[in-house]
Amino acid sequence: MRYHNLTVSTIRVTTASAAYSVTIAPGLLRTLYPRLRRLTPGKTLSLFVVTSPAIWALWHDRFLASFPSNQQPTTLFLPSGESHKRLAAVESLAQQLALAGADRDSILLAFGGGIVGDITGFLAAIYMRGIRYVGLPTTLLAQVDSSLGGKTGVNLLAGKNLIGAFHHPLAVFSDIDTLATLPAVELRAGLQEAIKSAIIHDAKLFLYLEQNAPLILGQASDTDPGLSTKFAPKSTPGGIEHQPSNLVFADAKTMAHVVTASVKVKAEVVSKDEKESGLRMVLNFGHTIGHAIEAATHYRKLLHGEAVAWGSIAALHLSLNRGLITPEDFARMANLILRYGPIPPFKVAATPQASAAKLVALTSADKKKRSGRRAFVLATAIGRTEVAHNVTDAELLAATQSMLTTMQQT
Amino acid sequence: MRYHNLTVSTIRVTTASAAYSVTIAPGLLRTLYPRLRRLTPGKTLSLFVVTSPAIWALWHDRFLASFPSNQQPTTLFLPSGESHKRLAAVESLAQQLALAGADRDSILLAFGGGIVGDITGFLAAIYMRGIRYVGLPTTLLAQVDSSLGGKTGVNLLAGKNLIGAFHHPLAVFSDIDTLATLPAVELRAGLQEAIKSAIIHDAKLFLYLEQNAPLILGQASDTDPGLSTKFAPKSTPGGIEHQPSNLVFADAKTMAHVVTASVKVKAEVVSKDEKESGLRMVLNFGHTIGHAIEAATHYRKLLHGEAVAWGSIAALHLSLNRGLITPEDFARMANLILRYGPIPPFKVAATPQASAAKLVALTSADKKKRSGRRAFVLATAIGRTEVAHNVTDAELLAATQSMLTTMQQT
Repeated sequence: MRYHNLTVSTIRVTTASAAYSVTIAPGLLRTLYPRLRRLTPGKTLSLFVVTSPAIWALWHDRFLASFPSNQQPTTLFLPSGESHKRLAAVESLAQQLALAGADRDSILLAFGGGIVGDITGFLAAIYMRGIRYVGLPTTLLAQVDSSLGGKTGVNLLAGKNLIGAFHHPLAVFSDIDTLATLPAVELRAGLQEAIKSAIIHDAKLFLYLEQNAPLILGQASDTDPGLSTKFAPKSTPGGIEHQPSNLVFADAKTMAHVVTASVKVKAEVVSKDEKESGLRMVLNFGHTIGHAIEAATHYRKLLHGEAVAWGSIAALHLSLNRGLITPEDFARMANLILRYGPIPPFKVAATPQASAAKLVALTSADKKKRSGRRAFVLATAIGRTEVAHNVTDAELLAATQSMLTTMQQT
Repeated sequence: MRYHNLTVSTIRVTTASAAYSVTIAPGLLRTLYPRLRRLTPGKTLSLFVVTSPAIWALWHDRFLASFPSNQQPTTLFLPSGESHKRLAAVESLAQQLALAGADRDSILLAFGGGIVGDITGFLAAIYMRGIRYVGLPTTLLAQVDSSLGGKTGVNLLAGKNLIGAFHHPLAVFSDIDTLATLPAVELRAGLQEAIKSAIIHDAKLFLYLEQNAPLILGQASDTDPGLSTKFAPKSTPGGIEHQPSNLVFADAKTMAHVVTASVKVKAEVVSKDEKESGLRMVLNFGHTIGHAIEAATHYRKLLHGEAVAWGSIAALHLSLNRGLITPEDFARMANLILRYGPIPPFKVAATPQASAAKLVALTSADKKKRSGRRAFVLATAIGRTEVAHNVTDAELLAATQSMLTTMQQT
């Protein structure tokens, strides 16, 4: 095996309702079947892969490499793109499962990015009132964020993720190699979530991201200057897809470290607070304004990680304005976010003032806001945060305007 | 109040994941608002009623009688009938909830029969990853069975209840008066579930049903001899609807006793075994063949309770054949089931032999069967059952043939 000398990291997530392991390594797919076997010893495995046609075309050889010929899983396909993250897709998959004989002992394998994970997890939550699933995230964003924590669901016309369930996977296996076929722009957007993890909870990861930026960004830069635009999700929101490329990740070790450290942050936080009553809120750092940006741009102009990057810069400005962080720490954090760019600029109104006002108005609709109180996550140092419930619209407006000024200067 | 001297029964259901009360009384609807208030003290109530147009037309006056004028709930309608128990209806309701501003603190009120309860409970399970709901069952079947136990869900084309979630209500309020507008055939079908509860777990209820049959059946007999046919669900499966009638239940006290005792049986069983791993299986007495009958008649010819009645007679024959019950107990149990009829006869093949074979073949598709083992519930005495895993197809065939012979003789 090419990878025998690469470290396999295993991180345990333990919540009130479930406990499972996240395994991270390059080359993991090639050893998938024995790993699945070990999860449910003694039983015949009834496995159903849910994936996208593009991912399956690129990776099915490695995926199936370890399966005995008489134990091939059934494969169900989801068309890619956020527009398919709806109950109709869930119903179609459920119908296919039923016709293929899936029962309560069957296990779904969610092989793809965040949308595949969200839909498959939700499908598993409601098929026959709940069956098991395994996460096999193939994008950086899914590996460091969405595959963990048990949040599953689909969109309504009225809003994103308004339908869903908490349903934890049986296990998560993240093969770093699958990131090799990810467009650079998607990799960079995922790295912004890693930076967020560093800012909220892991000063050592922050330092690692600072010091290894050239190495990491070497993987995530566009060799073709037009590439970022080429793959930008303007026409198919959420539809950024894996592309044929070398299928080998040049610096898998560094990326594995970044993924592992980010997963540790999320695992620690969700282990302590499964259902977002308090601590888990800190994972929403940058998300209040980030979600407003996504809504204002109709989820078309920026990737989630890019919107969160701008939202994080706004949150840093607010933290600085409150005197919670030093100007030096502010500069280091804002600079790291910008260095892992370019983060596309956006415009939601004619003037910066009007843009800021529009974004702040949109934060009121954020579903994270319960019974009228807005919870806002502030940085208090590199690797430390706190949740404030007394952030005023005026503070939010000032911070958002400062963020837009930063955008104009870059 | 007319009902001040009628007993209000409260039964506690306690499972691993939830605890709630079931309150049973005639006239309960008139006191609904203060009862809901007590469930969530101190908070503003955000209430959404999910109901059918027919039920709402008959009962909205009493339903709203106790609500302050500035606290009127929002009402969402579901068309009646099993054909609407699908994800599309759930999505439409969720979209309406979102547009009406329902948030994580909102509470759904499931006001109707089993279908309204199943859909509303499932909607509550997946709206914003889970909000609370209160059961307000208006049919006898829903009051004694489907409103309890936390099973919620919808159908796929591939099969009934293949999509769903375990989600317990915050509370259940069963107003016996609402049974007054139920067609007699529906009332009788619900009584068959009460008989099932008596057979599996409550010899005293069995005796009560024997001794009070004239009184109870006085409520449930068709004044018009054509009524049973008139309301039979041949054209609209599951679409039996409440009918305008006197809106007062002549013998509410007797019926309240039957409902309360039946609820106690189910509450005890689900309290001990939430997710059907073992004990809860006994609630499926009569359901193995019952489900096969429903499937073979495409859910059009018999009501659920009627199919279970025939299924129970088959299960009693099997218990008798094994020598688990005496011929005397067999006769008492089978006779009680038949006395609470008429149970419509059915035919699923040209000969009784072929019918029996077809039904037995259909039991193999029953989703209660896990990993190849069939669990079958047998009576061991009046009020006592056991679960057997070694029932053979030959035994099942013989018992089903005996049941069909019983059918021909009645």
